[in-house]
Amino acid sequence: MSLDPKVAARLKRNPDGLVAAIVQQYDTGEVLMLAWMNDEALHRTLTTGRATYWSRSRDQLWVKGETSGHVQHVKSVALDCDGDAVLVKVDQVDGACHTGDRTCFDADQLEIALG
Amino acid sequence: MSLDPKVAARLKRNPDGLVAAIVQQYDTGEVLMLAWMNDEALHRTLTTGRATYWSRSRDQLWVKGETSGHVQHVKSVALDCDGDAVLVKVDQVDGACHTGDRTCFDADQLEIALG
Repeated sequence: MSLDPKVAARLKRNPDGLVAAIVQQYDTGEVLMLAWMNDEALHRTLTTGRATYWSRSRDQLWVKGETSGHVQHVKSVALDCDGDAVLVKVDQVDGACHTGDRTCFDADQLEIALG
Repeated sequence: MSLDPKVAARLKRNPDGLVAAIVQQYDTGEVLMLAWMNDEALHRTLTTGRATYWSRSRDQLWVKGETSGHVQHVKSVALDCDGDAVLVKVDQVDGACHTGDRTCFDADQLEIALG
């Protein structure tokens, strides 16, 4: 079993064969993290209900929360207008970030200084 | 004037010198689009209050809404835990997507079919 060819045909993958995955908590709207998917990761995300990515550091499929228990239950997946990004709405168990934070964007707010 | 060296030092750019920018409507939480920034685009976003990206198709800086009028007023910018993505919260005038849709993720919902 692999990714629906009709979906696969709409993807615009980067040179590494990946599309970006923006991961959002479905009810609060918090943006949790940015990850990457190859065709197989997208297929598993759509068919298992568990958010699955391609780990660029480990160079392997990565079921989010597989070791930490901080899994993501998939609610919806949408492809963007040019086919190179997906928006994955999930129900995140505990924190999404490996640092323990709820989201990967909690720790480093940049200063806006209008000139 | 260029990007604050303390911020620049925390960025982990891709081979094209870019970080991903997830763009979110600040009050409703809608994810509007995924774009890309080089150092100069991030600098301008932080100092002009107008979301500015690097257009990979036109290979130039791109002030969102410059021609369409669909500008993005920047509310906050946060860097993620590994420095390769920013979350830009904005107030979006009209639609974010070049198709006329409110967001770039409105048109193509993928089917979730649990096995």
